[in-house]
Amino acid sequence: MRSHYCGDVNESLVGQTVTVAGWMHRRRDHGGVIFIDLRDREGLVQVVCNPEDAESFAVAEKVRSEFVLQIEGEVKPRPAGSENTDLRSGKIELIAKRVEILNSSETPPFPLNEQAEVNEDIRLRHRYIDLRRPEMLQKLRFRSMITRQLRQYLDAKGFLDIETPILTKATPEGARDYLVPSRTHQGEFFALPQSPQLFKQLLMVAGMDRYYQVVRCFRDEDLRADRQPEFTQLDIETSFVEEEELMNLMEEMIRDLFANVLEQALPKPFPRMSYAEAMDRFGSDKPDLRIPLELVEVSDLMKAVDFKVFSGPASDERGRVAALRVPGGNELSRKEIDDYTKYVGIYGAKGLAYIKINDISAGREGLQSPILKFLPDDVVEAILQRTGAQTGDLVFFGADKATIVNEALGALRVKLGHDLNMVEHGWKPLWVVEFPMFEWDDKTQRWYALHHPFTAPRVEDESLLETDPGRCLSRAYDMVLNGTELGGGSMRIHKTELQQKVFRMLGISDEEAAEKFGFLLQALKYGCPPHGGLAFGLDRLAMLMTGSASIRDVMAFPKTQSAACLLTDAPGAVSDEQLKELNIRLRKLPGAEA
Amino acid sequence: MRSHYCGDVNESLVGQTVTVAGWMHRRRDHGGVIFIDLRDREGLVQVVCNPEDAESFAVAEKVRSEFVLQIEGEVKPRPAGSENTDLRSGKIELIAKRVEILNSSETPPFPLNEQAEVNEDIRLRHRYIDLRRPEMLQKLRFRSMITRQLRQYLDAKGFLDIETPILTKATPEGARDYLVPSRTHQGEFFALPQSPQLFKQLLMVAGMDRYYQVVRCFRDEDLRADRQPEFTQLDIETSFVEEEELMNLMEEMIRDLFANVLEQALPKPFPRMSYAEAMDRFGSDKPDLRIPLELVEVSDLMKAVDFKVFSGPASDERGRVAALRVPGGNELSRKEIDDYTKYVGIYGAKGLAYIKINDISAGREGLQSPILKFLPDDVVEAILQRTGAQTGDLVFFGADKATIVNEALGALRVKLGHDLNMVEHGWKPLWVVEFPMFEWDDKTQRWYALHHPFTAPRVEDESLLETDPGRCLSRAYDMVLNGTELGGGSMRIHKTELQQKVFRMLGISDEEAAEKFGFLLQALKYGCPPHGGLAFGLDRLAMLMTGSASIRDVMAFPKTQSAACLLTDAPGAVSDEQLKELNIRLRKLPGAEA
Repeated sequence: MRSHYCGDVNESLVGQTVTVAGWMHRRRDHGGVIFIDLRDREGLVQVVCNPEDAESFAVAEKVRSEFVLQIEGEVKPRPAGSENTDLRSGKIELIAKRVEILNSSETPPFPLNEQAEVNEDIRLRHRYIDLRRPEMLQKLRFRSMITRQLRQYLDAKGFLDIETPILTKATPEGARDYLVPSRTHQGEFFALPQSPQLFKQLLMVAGMDRYYQVVRCFRDEDLRADRQPEFTQLDIETSFVEEEELMNLMEEMIRDLFANVLEQALPKPFPRMSYAEAMDRFGSDKPDLRIPLELVEVSDLMKAVDFKVFSGPASDERGRVAALRVPGGNELSRKEIDDYTKYVGIYGAKGLAYIKINDISAGREGLQSPILKFLPDDVVEAILQRTGAQTGDLVFFGADKATIVNEALGALRVKLGHDLNMVEHGWKPLWVVEFPMFEWDDKTQRWYALHHPFTAPRVEDESLLETDPGRCLSRAYDMVLNGTELGGGSMRIHKTELQQKVFRMLGISDEEAAEKFGFLLQALKYGCPPHGGLAFGLDRLAMLMTGSASIRDVMAFPKTQSAACLLTDAPGAVSDEQLKELNIRLRKLPGAEA
Repeated sequence: MRSHYCGDVNESLVGQTVTVAGWMHRRRDHGGVIFIDLRDREGLVQVVCNPEDAESFAVAEKVRSEFVLQIEGEVKPRPAGSENTDLRSGKIELIAKRVEILNSSETPPFPLNEQAEVNEDIRLRHRYIDLRRPEMLQKLRFRSMITRQLRQYLDAKGFLDIETPILTKATPEGARDYLVPSRTHQGEFFALPQSPQLFKQLLMVAGMDRYYQVVRCFRDEDLRADRQPEFTQLDIETSFVEEEELMNLMEEMIRDLFANVLEQALPKPFPRMSYAEAMDRFGSDKPDLRIPLELVEVSDLMKAVDFKVFSGPASDERGRVAALRVPGGNELSRKEIDDYTKYVGIYGAKGLAYIKINDISAGREGLQSPILKFLPDDVVEAILQRTGAQTGDLVFFGADKATIVNEALGALRVKLGHDLNMVEHGWKPLWVVEFPMFEWDDKTQRWYALHHPFTAPRVEDESLLETDPGRCLSRAYDMVLNGTELGGGSMRIHKTELQQKVFRMLGISDEEAAEKFGFLLQALKYGCPPHGGLAFGLDRLAMLMTGSASIRDVMAFPKTQSAACLLTDAPGAVSDEQLKELNIRLRKLPGAEA
């Protein structure tokens, strides 16, 4: 139906007759001549319909925005001075010989030929039009290139692309599982996988050696933080390796990706940072290293001050007092500081103390702060010295449980970085390593796995598992890029006894473990090789690489934050007949009382 | 952990020290020396543990089948006469310097180091061991190569790999849909897609131009015929093409695949056959052309015979009488013919008449048949001539509704081909084209779409849609290989009015169409390009190419015929708490009365 894509018609074709097909992007009538910009996936071409060619001209007069046209015409150079250097086809135009309307179009719900902010709900409802915008098309195209590049790398390294089930085992505690009632096994349910973790481990037991899969995963949870009920992982697992080899391979893959797809160089090697250091310096296990602000530990200085807000957390084993110097922050207004105080409140911080440095050479006189009166000279001096504060700076303080201080100042650090235009350009990847195995939860009074229960402890820490679990570090690693966790993984437990020990630590009884993970424990008994792997969030990677604001922008048909598809109107009602066949019924009818 | 894969250690490494890791496949103690065959993904290597190396020897004495070992050793040529030409590593052996047990193994539930028929349930329950068998490993590896090759072809042709949702719209009539209750929209359900058909059409409306996806699809139905609740499609759609171009592209893709992966040549071009011809000659729309048997139309001969069983169907517009000549079939025993009669009974045939040709030159005397008495001489002669029957042959007859005759004789043809060793070697692909748009169902007294309701009618047949739907042919095409449908597709309807007309033909009211397919009808209004595509069954393709007996053999973790996973024991029970959150409850508790 065409000899060339619109965007591919260029000066090399001058004098030839070509056929193009696409959408009527823009039309201008000028001096009795109709100019049509015809658009397809590859770009635009300008078509000239002269009144002398009565038949084509008559058709051209009828076309409206987004009509689908097939046009045959001769390629001619544009008249001198009318070239468009923004277009690949900008040096030529097509003199129409035949214009055919392949399909008409109603006026689209939002214009495609101008830059306009369109409400996202409308875009999602008419996604097939939204995706026509060159920006969106390029994002999906780019995503396709990313996946291809990653696959090529892994294929070349001997990884096998193996598919794992989507209809998997439901477990009584899988609170975030999507469930699927079984028709053949009435009263029983499948679950959609949150990840193929156990299947990929079983593939290692099976001797596949190197596995990958670009795989859909599902999580039924609050979608606040730009999450989607279904998302895509690049899932990887290997046998007979240790973390060093795997991490090197993985960062090479990502470097290759950026080099080939973006033509941008990432550092070699990626810097590494322990979890402890990341929390100390950035209050986060996924620090954005583009932001030149750091938390500074001042707990030791605050133990003895006569200010409970500081001395309390400073003296508490689980407390922390930290400072965050903001260069030039002196210029922040009262209102701005109030807003930041509210902001850290989201993370549980009860306040946000600060010192403004008006004149560093003037001693206490040069400082301005509601809390200054509580701090003796030597403490003030030590703070200034340790933070490196200069005239014009401001120093924020966080004092609370360490988890709260880290979350609050960590988030504040990022916000300040953006608000004050301090974010450096470029890509700042790093590996975060030496995660703790467990996290204590005060509310439920038990340990939780920081990664997942299949993560191996460091060999030298195995003895801490039972004696001092909080200090037991794991063989987990996260790849972080510009403050986003790109991927994470670990070396796995490959022996039954150790796996059982970890389950028990997590409050999973042997009985419960057998019911939920019996097949894994069984598999570990039959010659499981040492293995490890990781998973990358493909949506997030594509979002970062395309500079998108949301993962919704790199998905063809995303769902809204309430997990609905505005385009197809899913989820929807089903007939009682269908539910009957599945042996389920609704507890409460829509609109009815309980 | 290793310098080489076991299978990769060969004579080029003689004199070097290598480290390998893998599973203890076989152990022999011979003349005080322990021989270990160590196995990994790439093959076996023979390791020699000499008693002089006391430490290694002591470890080697402890190892049992399927222990996971790391072995360092020196590569030496095998003693003359002890080479094994079946192994890539068969010219060398590894003299162990260090043997380390990385993990032990219980005795596996079935042996891996010998050819043994193992019950499939046991294989599935311990799939991680079953997949260690080199045969299974190779199948998965091969499947990985197939997908890669297909992707490479499509990538090179400018197809974009775009992901579509798994949580999609449930429709009140989706009887085969797996349903997923929504937590956020209580009382509503998602459905898992039977195919991404509508999404890929929307991608064409969006101007993606060329789309593909290797995508999981779901169908909740009887699994008798080697089907799986979840299966994988290579899904393809293109804009601005017509069937000729697309079919050429697709058969080139498949030819490329066979050439690159199997090093086998498929014919160029694939032969094409109309649906009508395929039914006439083979009683099937996916004829296995390797079998040199054909149905022969004899309805016209039977109209006037004094035998209701034949004359009835022969005179009925929807009836058919067909003959199937079996060369050498004269030797079939009474018992065998009875068995075939039972076999065609499965397909609804009420009997299986036949004539044995004992001596073609002897006229009626040379024939043997219970129905001979009903057939006048000229009819008998015409039958013999038309079927080309020879001495020693047998001719079967089918007489019934055409659908029953086709199904029964079509299946009999295939069975005879296999039973009598008539199946030719090699690959016999073909395209079946010119399908009818609709099929009439007597029971429900309505038309059904032979492909799906989005298939376009032939342009020249559009007017038949309302006047004579049974004669209206579609723009659908199926690719068939050795009697298996590899893929199928069509040019789609790209105009709203035509789509609505087809919906109405199928008994879908405008209201129902708006509810179920409103978003598609809407999308067609906004400049939908002419488009078409197809989908290949990847599991089936991999099964054919690996010569497997079932698609279960080319899936890592298949389900049983009752849609259960024996490995993980899915589906399973969930807590009432979980159901409560989803606003559903079981109608009937397991074991309880209704």
